[in-house]
Amino acid sequence: MKDLVLEEKLRELAGLQADLFNRDFLLTWEHSQAEIRAILLTAECLRTLYGAGRSLRLFDTGLAVSIFRDQSTRTRFSFASAAAALGLTLADLDEAKSQIAHGETVRETAVMIAFLADVIGIRDDIYLGEGNRTMREVASALQEGYERGLLPQRPAIINLQCDLDHPTQTLADLLHLESRFGGPAGLRGRKFVISWAYSPSYGKPLSVPQGLIGLLTRFGLDVTLAYPEGYDLLPDVVALAEKQAAASGGAFRISHDMAEAFDGAEIVYPKSWAPMQVARRRTELLKKADREGLLALERKCLEENARHKSWQCDEALMKRTAAGSALYMHCLPADISGVSCPQGEVSREVFERFRLETYREASWKPFIIAALIVLTRIPDSAASLRRLVEAAAPRIR
Amino acid sequence: MKDLVLEEKLRELAGLQADLFNRDFLLTWEHSQAEIRAILLTAECLRTLYGAGRSLRLFDTGLAVSIFRDQSTRTRFSFASAAAALGLTLADLDEAKSQIAHGETVRETAVMIAFLADVIGIRDDIYLGEGNRTMREVASALQEGYERGLLPQRPAIINLQCDLDHPTQTLADLLHLESRFGGPAGLRGRKFVISWAYSPSYGKPLSVPQGLIGLLTRFGLDVTLAYPEGYDLLPDVVALAEKQAAASGGAFRISHDMAEAFDGAEIVYPKSWAPMQVARRRTELLKKADREGLLALERKCLEENARHKSWQCDEALMKRTAAGSALYMHCLPADISGVSCPQGEVSREVFERFRLETYREASWKPFIIAALIVLTRIPDSAASLRRLVEAAAPRIR
Amino acid sequence: MKDLVLEEKLRELAGLQADLFNRDFLLTWEHSQAEIRAILLTAECLRTLYGAGRSLRLFDTGLAVSIFRDQSTRTRFSFASAAAALGLTLADLDEAKSQIAHGETVRETAVMIAFLADVIGIRDDIYLGEGNRTMREVASALQEGYERGLLPQRPAIINLQCDLDHPTQTLADLLHLESRFGGPAGLRGRKFVISWAYSPSYGKPLSVPQGLIGLLTRFGLDVTLAYPEGYDLLPDVVALAEKQAAASGGAFRISHDMAEAFDGAEIVYPKSWAPMQVARRRTELLKKADREGLLALERKCLEENARHKSWQCDEALMKRTAAGSALYMHCLPADISGVSCPQGEVSREVFERFRLETYREASWKPFIIAALIVLTRIPDSAASLRRLVEAAAPRIR
Repeated sequence: MKDLVLEEKLRELAGLQADLFNRDFLLTWEHSQAEIRAILLTAECLRTLYGAGRSLRLFDTGLAVSIFRDQSTRTRFSFASAAAALGLTLADLDEAKSQIAHGETVRETAVMIAFLADVIGIRDDIYLGEGNRTMREVASALQEGYERGLLPQRPAIINLQCDLDHPTQTLADLLHLESRFGGPAGLRGRKFVISWAYSPSYGKPLSVPQGLIGLLTRFGLDVTLAYPEGYDLLPDVVALAEKQAAASGGAFRISHDMAEAFDGAEIVYPKSWAPMQVARRRTELLKKADREGLLALERKCLEENARHKSWQCDEALMKRTAAGSALYMHCLPADISGVSCPQGEVSREVFERFRLETYREASWKPFIIAALIVLTRIPDSAASLRRLVEAAAPRIR
Repeated sequence: MKDLVLEEKLRELAGLQADLFNRDFLLTWEHSQAEIRAILLTAECLRTLYGAGRSLRLFDTGLAVSIFRDQSTRTRFSFASAAAALGLTLADLDEAKSQIAHGETVRETAVMIAFLADVIGIRDDIYLGEGNRTMREVASALQEGYERGLLPQRPAIINLQCDLDHPTQTLADLLHLESRFGGPAGLRGRKFVISWAYSPSYGKPLSVPQGLIGLLTRFGLDVTLAYPEGYDLLPDVVALAEKQAAASGGAFRISHDMAEAFDGAEIVYPKSWAPMQVARRRTELLKKADREGLLALERKCLEENARHKSWQCDEALMKRTAAGSALYMHCLPADISGVSCPQGEVSREVFERFRLETYREASWKPFIIAALIVLTRIPDSAASLRRLVEAAAPRIR
Repeated sequence: MKDLVLEEKLRELAGLQADLFNRDFLLTWEHSQAEIRAILLTAECLRTLYGAGRSLRLFDTGLAVSIFRDQSTRTRFSFASAAAALGLTLADLDEAKSQIAHGETVRETAVMIAFLADVIGIRDDIYLGEGNRTMREVASALQEGYERGLLPQRPAIINLQCDLDHPTQTLADLLHLESRFGGPAGLRGRKFVISWAYSPSYGKPLSVPQGLIGLLTRFGLDVTLAYPEGYDLLPDVVALAEKQAAASGGAFRISHDMAEAFDGAEIVYPKSWAPMQVARRRTELLKKADREGLLALERKCLEENARHKSWQCDEALMKRTAAGSALYMHCLPADISGVSCPQGEVSREVFERFRLETYREASWKPFIIAALIVLTRIPDSAASLRRLVEAAAPRIR
């Protein structure tokens, strides 16, 4: 296979100052530009090889553990697909079947499931202020176990969505944008809008909008965050986005008018989320198992949401975008008016027009996760990838 | 390994005009005789190789997805065993854990779980008029995804039991018959009876009896379908069985007298099912979640069933078969009188006499499923099988 | 890799008169000293190789089935880790999803899940008098299936905890002791105390204390079993421990005073269990699904337990041990006072001091299970291990 694009990517990868080996991947903003670049390049190489029918087996044997503290289909299968493609066996810690709990128990369980584990993927996005913290508790227990010789290797933790960030989603989104706009250079100055949108449900995590402003502002995009007053994100992440936009030569602003935000936009990402204050209150009530309080909160929030039903991405709004032809994005599943709910985040017409585009956006996720496994678990992953290319082993014999 | 029988089968396989590559396997009657033959031959070759301690790894890595919308042990493990033997990793879409729903959501989920999937096995047998239709909806979504470049390959859908057919069961049954009666030629003219039998439960799918008359009438057998008046199968499938029997030089008739049907039979398959009308009514009630209606229907059906308790396969009935020694078959688990229920489909004596035979019948299923995966997913599967034989790699090192 | 210790172990292993091939592993006391030695040596070799980054793939493909009739995290992941490391795919028989039941159904299901299985790990520890018996029922069905040609191989059953023994735990404990005290010779005469300890829960299985006295008395240790009057273990196992201690040159005695038992102890294993009589009564009530009876029994037992709150392993007790520095052991999770419960088996201070030691103890379990799979499923496993060492294939490429 003489694939010059692939060769170019491998060469760039080998030259990067990116060291993700023996590290976790918990928040995109904890990693350098070179590290983000390495992830995208590795994901692209893996996709090219897979598409050419090549085996991606970099592990002769090994174990990938998943922990899902919230429902998931897409991310669950992306993780399973990535692990399987690399040669890892899957084991899911189904908490209903097991004995996990909090505090010391988290640390103990972390070690018990990790004796022969290569990677642990965790989704923990329900409790604001808890998910990412728990991941760090697991990480510190693994680090201690590794340093004290209990674990023969340091399994990498991959954040499959927490209360703060959804890095495998936003990296897939970024790669989708690069593939649509001609690589990293094509993103500079692009008008990107992440907008709140109406949904008949409430309490969706903040991690996607926060993850998007926390990642895309680093690549020179002109990012607008739009939401009705009161639907704030965490101030720390907003401050970070502002700082990063300034440093990258991009822009970041907040709007409280969806239509105005869409004016001239080249990419729109309309998506519901719960206001930070609601997410905080909900976490308190969930911890106290206060069912009445939760029902009252839900009622109040749905009423509040209902005042913003006009925050729906429809063709009228899409006409206001640049040349009326902005790219529509979504992490799926979208609340589609007249399809999955009476009224939701996006009109049937807009969604149907971009349905396959959203699938393409999602199709990057297994390769992003595979890239994270490769980079965090293989010492000289560029060399391993190079050997994989040269071995040219077919996946199907 | 110089196995002349294996050589003979490989040669016959290579000469067949059977093209199952990149296709689904949803109903046996949608596939040509040559394709059915290719499946049986491939299953036999795989069984021979496995039995000789050879590795069947045809996939260096890969993913087999299963979706079970109904309970299953046998088929679940057959699918898992087949996938594992070929080198595929398993991922189960447990709908309780995931976000699958109907209509557009089925199509979207189909693509989301399929980005790196090689095969998707689906059991969806509860709703008459729905199961097979849903499989086709999944298939069409995958086809669209493949044609539009979203999926790097077209995963095959394998019907692990629907409302119409249970092809992996009936193909295992056919192979069991061939192995008992000297190959395909030995089946011509054999008197085969698929008979309704009493069960203390109600609402069992129609797929096994329909699948049997839809498959066996193509191979020259003399097929009798016996059931109490009112326990009809779908008219389309019955009409198909009549047509196929005429074309194959076999026979097909319906009897409403179990004893008469058993006269001179060489193979008997006594098995409970719900009348088509009941299955239809049940589907309507299930869709409306009408619990009272369902309870009333169950009561009425159990009363109706109880009028046919004499439809039990016992030694007296078995004596009426050819030389009193017909082969007893069942897809398992059977309702065995005095064992798994007070009175059921078969007496303890008859079942015990054939217990190991029914296990042997079941033992073909993993190899049938493996054959379907090989034929639908490997372009020149005969050549791949040949290489597998020649590599002679031991499964255990 | 010139590892002289590894070479020494391989040589000893090759010379042992141990034949575990095609056998089950249900109780340690059914196996010879040479067989126990072979398991420990194999586990150590596998750990050394894994730690050196070598692939342990002895199966090109294969299937490991697990059946958990009780909650489990540690053992579940140990089994999964062992299977994955050897190249086996995992399939869990989740009984909620399947159709397993009792009697004939157990035998039938055993065969149905075993057509292509290499090993079946079973945890069945809730019903005293049932768990081990069920494993033997599964074993006899598999044996019949194998002898009658239905199963191409005889899958090994590995006891992952039953009502009588917990062999993968106690073998891991034994290996931990050997690694701490200089091999088998270092264990002779060591004062080991397995003591009942208070727990706010009731009904914990007897399998760990029984398994410990049933195993450790064979290796010359000076074993004390301590418990409040009434908390008896099964008399058969106690009698066995007495006999074995006499034969091995060790000692075995029973004490009803925790403090006295700890005097001069070199190893202590404080662990709660239900009295045999309670476990028997509980089994009867569970079988009758007598919820009120169960609640009454629980109430009564918790009251009885509460009379023995002083049976807690704290620093005052630890001071009485040999040089005040006995090794603390536990199978985890421990009931830690002020951490996982208000008052429990062990004080926070003692547990924290030995926390990493208990993790190290647990870290042997995946390798014990892997060793059991290798020895029961590979005909000349010493030769296979030797080839693995010589191949020196890296686990990560």
